[in-house]
Amino acid sequence: MKNGRLESQIKFIVEIDKLKNVFRQTYLTNGKHRENDAEHSWHLAVIAVILSEYATDNDIDVLRVIKMVLIHDIVEIDAGDTLVYDRAKAKNVAEAERKDADRIFNILPTGQANELRELWVEFEARKTPEARFAAAIDRLQPILNNYHTQGGAWREHGIKLDKVIETNKHIAEGAPALWEYAEKMLRDAVEKGYLES
Amino acid sequence: MKNGRLESQIKFIVEIDKLKNVFRQTYLTNGKHRENDAEHSWHLAVIAVILSEYATDNDIDVLRVIKMVLIHDIVEIDAGDTLVYDRAKAKNVAEAERKDADRIFNILPTGQANELRELWVEFEARKTPEARFAAAIDRLQPILNNYHTQGGAWREHGIKLDKVIETNKHIAEGAPALWEYAEKMLRDAVEKGYLES
Repeated sequence: MKNGRLESQIKFIVEIDKLKNVFRQTYLTNGKHRENDAEHSWHLAVIAVILSEYATDNDIDVLRVIKMVLIHDIVEIDAGDTLVYDRAKAKNVAEAERKDADRIFNILPTGQANELRELWVEFEARKTPEARFAAAIDRLQPILNNYHTQGGAWREHGIKLDKVIETNKHIAEGAPALWEYAEKMLRDAVEKGYLES
Repeated sequence: MKNGRLESQIKFIVEIDKLKNVFRQTYLTNGKHRENDAEHSWHLAVIAVILSEYATDNDIDVLRVIKMVLIHDIVEIDAGDTLVYDRAKAKNVAEAERKDADRIFNILPTGQANELRELWVEFEARKTPEARFAAAIDRLQPILNNYHTQGGAWREHGIKLDKVIETNKHIAEGAPALWEYAEKMLRDAVEKGYLES
């Protein structure tokens, strides 16, 4: 079944099915299962559609944001997920992820491989308005799920309020109103005993 | 935590987390777990990015396709998933899904509720180039997963080749080259014993 270009594209599509088996720390709102990267990426893409009006730059290219969030975790197929609060480990992961990005994106025809790899680099660098907004919703979504599981992964890992604020405050760069909302939610989480102050 | 518009949007975002618990007949390529609707929708959105060049209409609006596939199964939060090969049941489901669409999309502010509901209706009607392409990739993806699980859901339900062709041939309306590819794959599946002829 050789078909050149299409064959490579299908191979990539089949390869990324594995993202459905990369589990995150966050629990689903039913509190029973951990979320996987494919579910998380889907959720972010819908959030990008719904909340783009809150982006710092209101001329934001929503399609670009969606593409970024759809593929932002694909490198974890090889590297696995890292707890965002574990900073030392995260540094080593960055290097490994660059190699994994090469392997996975290069399954695609060159043009598409380059496009997706550049979007991933852009997301990681968090310097464009689209990347800042994508990074903001990437942090907002786990806060929502942690809140709606009475603290879920925060409690499991003994994460405290100041750590949560430190790690997530860059939401304000991509979407100030969403950070304002998240901060209220965090204060409420402390009040309800979901999160230690 | 009242905030009007944003509060409604967040409520919708939390509500649709439930799509991660709606399981489909299709297995993941690891063959161990069934796929859920959120994973499926993520996969389709990436496929839309990668394969849009094969759409019948090459002026297709990719953002519109992506929005469609991201939300096309959201109504199943209430209704559950129906085996695509079970046509009688599917008719009753359509009516129920219309009511569920009202409930779920109307959590959003009116403008966004209408936009997403219309996209869902457009997807179901399969009359625009975007809807035809979205429907094509919605059928292609399970074929890929069934093939890569040695027949997976086909074998489990005793589905035969002519039924698979009958149910999926509309792929050709949205993306002729993808149907050509799928047909080759189906013939190969028969040859390998994944699918009964």
